[in-house]
Amino acid sequence: IVASGVCHSDWAYLYDVAKMKPRPFPLILGHEGAGIVESVGPGVTKVSKGDKVIPLFLPQCGQCERCLSPKTNLCTKNWDKTQQGVLADGTSRITCKNQQIYQFIGISTFSEYTVVPEDNVTKIHPDAPLDKVCLLGCGVSTGYGAAVNTGKVESGSTCAVFGLGAVGLAAVMGCKAAGASRIIAVDINPDKSEIAKTFGATEFLNPKDHSKPIQEVLRKLTNGGVDFSLECVGNVGVMRAAVEACSPAGGICVIVGWIEVEELSLAPLDILLGRTLKGTYFGGWKSVDAVPRLVQDYMSGKLLLDEFVTHRLTLDQVNQAFDHMINGRSIRTVIEM
Amino acid sequence: IVASGVCHSDWAYLYDVAKMKPRPFPLILGHEGAGIVESVGPGVTKVSKGDKVIPLFLPQCGQCERCLSPKTNLCTKNWDKTQQGVLADGTSRITCKNQQIYQFIGISTFSEYTVVPEDNVTKIHPDAPLDKVCLLGCGVSTGYGAAVNTGKVESGSTCAVFGLGAVGLAAVMGCKAAGASRIIAVDINPDKSEIAKTFGATEFLNPKDHSKPIQEVLRKLTNGGVDFSLECVGNVGVMRAAVEACSPAGGICVIVGWIEVEELSLAPLDILLGRTLKGTYFGGWKSVDAVPRLVQDYMSGKLLLDEFVTHRLTLDQVNQAFDHMINGRSIRTVIEM
Repeated sequence: IVASGVCHSDWAYLYDVAKMKPRPFPLILGHEGAGIVESVGPGVTKVSKGDKVIPLFLPQCGQCERCLSPKTNLCTKNWDKTQQGVLADGTSRITCKNQQIYQFIGISTFSEYTVVPEDNVTKIHPDAPLDKVCLLGCGVSTGYGAAVNTGKVESGSTCAVFGLGAVGLAAVMGCKAAGASRIIAVDINPDKSEIAKTFGATEFLNPKDHSKPIQEVLRKLTNGGVDFSLECVGNVGVMRAAVEACSPAGGICVIVGWIEVEELSLAPLDILLGRTLKGTYFGGWKSVDAVPRLVQDYMSGKLLLDEFVTHRLTLDQVNQAFDHMINGRSIRTVIEM
Repeated sequence: IVASGVCHSDWAYLYDVAKMKPRPFPLILGHEGAGIVESVGPGVTKVSKGDKVIPLFLPQCGQCERCLSPKTNLCTKNWDKTQQGVLADGTSRITCKNQQIYQFIGISTFSEYTVVPEDNVTKIHPDAPLDKVCLLGCGVSTGYGAAVNTGKVESGSTCAVFGLGAVGLAAVMGCKAAGASRIIAVDINPDKSEIAKTFGATEFLNPKDHSKPIQEVLRKLTNGGVDFSLECVGNVGVMRAAVEACSPAGGICVIVGWIEVEELSLAPLDILLGRTLKGTYFGGWKSVDAVPRLVQDYMSGKLLLDEFVTHRLTLDQVNQAFDHMINGRSIRTVIEM
């Protein structure tokens, strides 16, 4: 691994345990990395020593029923084992003092080396800067794809994006790429206003500036509701607001923020009267095929990545990266090994 | 009004008040009727005296933003007033002993006469049998459209329909019309098994016959979940089961059953990992345009209606119709004025 972004999910599995299902420990976190193949095991044909690659927490085996379906990217290969922190054989290849160290969602990128199955890695352009394209391993691909793949944001539409971390800003960028004419970025941190505009937001709303619930403010601003709303926080209250901010005339809410334990409560009438609720995992991208294309899109200037990177640290400083994130100072910290 | 079906919603606003927002009383219920125009007021051009018509609780004015949008059928004309039981001028044309009688969602079909706005009525084929096609005023159109319009059920797909009243059986019929290859009908009343097969169900499941939750049974039966599930009960627990019965590989749950007060609770992960939740109102049909076509589909044998009618009663027997419905003895009772 050459570089790894630090994503909110890394922090959440360690510190926000009330909202997450327990993972096995000791665990090496990190799931948004890029690196170079050091060696391959027997039978590996898709990558070779020296290839630049991005490890993928969502594989694309290309053979399971879901890989063959155009409707989903949720490859089933080794899913359960991956959630348990081990490879298909029930172990990880990482040990410390003879103790098994678990692997985070099949990857563990806060590490100089990792071992992943062939289907959990994708070869990218040899000129790709790994300290930037690592962000395509999770956050940017997830937010961007939530807009263009899952939401299928339409040209000329009105969008609201809740939560302006890397995922939310990438969702803003996706709405812009899809041709949305109005992109309302929503965050309780006023510092996010300028950066949101960099990625394409046309307006910024801070819920703290309004006495009414933000969904009411949005409905009033948009003649009854937005066409597309994207929740990029992982908070059930914000998810509900995102649903209620949608237009009953066919509005689509995509939930993107990750949360495993709490329940989302909705008024059935909000759904019965014309709204759709969808969810996304890795932005709906079929990972092995899509990530190299996204790398190319970055290299040709179609996709912003540099603008996400606010901090660079070394691996021993990873806890500072968590501090920056939780205090709203960073968009993405990239850890360089 | 010549004939009116008796729908569960009529009963619910009277007796299941905990699940419904209060309506103004005294109120004339009934919203699934058919009749003949007795006279028209000044300026009415779309229907004339003697026309056979179906009154529409959802108008299609043809001019509002939503009528002009292909994404929704939710015409906004007089929406709020309609919910308040009055016409656009704040009154209904029905009085008793000089007291204002309120009109149920703009229609009130448990009556020999009613007065509705021009956009709340649609002219149908002069040979249409009113004591059958009245069912297209609500239940059959709603369930059938939930499958073909809102869910967009696909050829060769696997479907589950929860609740086999008229709406659910019409949803089964819609799944069949859309070419679903497997249609699993679900009801706690074992008497619904045979009738479900009449409308196209390929299997019948009674949750009471299983110790596991019905969503688990369905996932096991269908290799991980159905492609389309349709909730036709109006119960938040069943709605949740219908979501959880869907395949994470792009499964779509359509809620059809009407409920106004209780909240639907979902695990965000069930949505994040690939399911879509949608809702339908009047089956997604643009009412004025669609209902005459559905009448023709019935007359040409493409749509079943006769099979829904299990009982025929007169207006003074309307409470017996409620008894039949609540006790699961009837599919639809048609009241003949």
